[in-house]
Amino acid sequence: MKEVLLVKLGGSVITDKAGGGGIDNAALADIGKVFAAHNDRISVILVHGAGSYGHPEARSHHLDKGLDSNNKAGIFITHRAVRTLNDAVVNALRAQGMEAVGIHPLSACIADNGNLQSFDSEPVELLARNGIVPVLHGDVVMDRSRGACIVSGDQLVRCLAESLNVDRIGLATDVAGVLDGGAVVPHIDPVSASSLVIGESGTTDVTGGMRGKINELLTLAESGASSSIFHISRLGDFLDGRDHGGTVVTR
Amino acid sequence: MKEVLLVKLGGSVITDKAGGGGIDNAALADIGKVFAAHNDRISVILVHGAGSYGHPEARSHHLDKGLDSNNKAGIFITHRAVRTLNDAVVNALRAQGMEAVGIHPLSACIADNGNLQSFDSEPVELLARNGIVPVLHGDVVMDRSRGACIVSGDQLVRCLAESLNVDRIGLATDVAGVLDGGAVVPHIDPVSASSLVIGESGTTDVTGGMRGKINELLTLAESGASSSIFHISRLGDFLDGRDHGGTVVTR
Repeated sequence: MKEVLLVKLGGSVITDKAGGGGIDNAALADIGKVFAAHNDRISVILVHGAGSYGHPEARSHHLDKGLDSNNKAGIFITHRAVRTLNDAVVNALRAQGMEAVGIHPLSACIADNGNLQSFDSEPVELLARNGIVPVLHGDVVMDRSRGACIVSGDQLVRCLAESLNVDRIGLATDVAGVLDGGAVVPHIDPVSASSLVIGESGTTDVTGGMRGKINELLTLAESGASSSIFHISRLGDFLDGRDHGGTVVTR
Repeated sequence: MKEVLLVKLGGSVITDKAGGGGIDNAALADIGKVFAAHNDRISVILVHGAGSYGHPEARSHHLDKGLDSNNKAGIFITHRAVRTLNDAVVNALRAQGMEAVGIHPLSACIADNGNLQSFDSEPVELLARNGIVPVLHGDVVMDRSRGACIVSGDQLVRCLAESLNVDRIGLATDVAGVLDGGAVVPHIDPVSASSLVIGESGTTDVTGGMRGKINELLTLAESGASSSIFHISRLGDFLDGRDHGGTVVTR
């Protein structure tokens, strides 16, 4: 059996989030090559953030305040934006000879009060088992109490890790790991987390930055699943199971 | 409360299925106008067939025989084709000022041995309740025993009708209804169905034609949900609740 890895690509890794700009196709091509080089040994479930795709649309339609009679178009427009990015990620893997398809949370997930509630992960599981990389993304989803909300890639990682039997979990970001006073914190658990002073991501988004990321991973760690946060340049090290120079979150 | 209608557009109604050709944008524009004219009185959940999009791709990759090591690319390629058609249907509604988004079975459904098993319909329900038309489509989905299979729009209609509280169900096709010796059969129930000689659709597809359609609707009828099959030109009559000149399937 291949090792099953749940990997998240931060939105800032694959888009020019700060500049309000496009898909970073050069970065995606490099990422596709790293995954392809490991394709015979690992089975990957991939999640990516929205970066500069989706967050501006969600914000301009005030989807963070829920759905009302005036912002319904924000659902289509936000989803279309993140789907465009998702298509690029899928195509970057396929360009390297891997099989991959986009899986869209709007079609499959429900949230309540901004928190992801239900997600039938069996399509994801069967795709991975058949050697096809399911590529999920932060998305707008319907919300029982708010009408609609944004679910982050980090929420999806937590939810997928809880329902699927994955061997390792890794979050590739544009920083070296969780930083405290500029230095990477090599290890975080619930006790040490409470004493950390953690800066927000350089460019904040509507889904929570590094603090939100750690909270999702600590929730996961409670159930025994440890996870890693590392710089995207160390993706190959993570896939190989080597030291990645980043942060490991455990219970 | 608006009346909730579950409507299926046959693939042959919106594509040139026989000619191996494109999206029928003129037909879609007309359909969009009919729905828009009723938008203040009804809430629509829309399903469409794949027509000339998806069936050729599914056939050339032998997805009807399940998944093997050689046809995995068929999932991406088939899904991309039907998604292109789905985008056109969504855009036809949005062009008339309606809110609509595509919902993709590949992301949300599981089949077993070719039969649709699980589908969390809550995203569909919440979209419809919020005045946004969810637009679903026949699609390739993952299958527990075959790896992958095609689920038809008719299967989706049956599954959605079983899980959602819809007021009326209508299937718009390129024929006037169920035909027996050239004449429309105005009413079908389980007893009369067994004695009918029903021709297949003019252009058969990998998901079953008129016989498959009736079987799905008879299954539905057993639980008390009657449904209508009518010519697309009578869509407005169906939406209005008037006689549509087609076939009504009941228990």
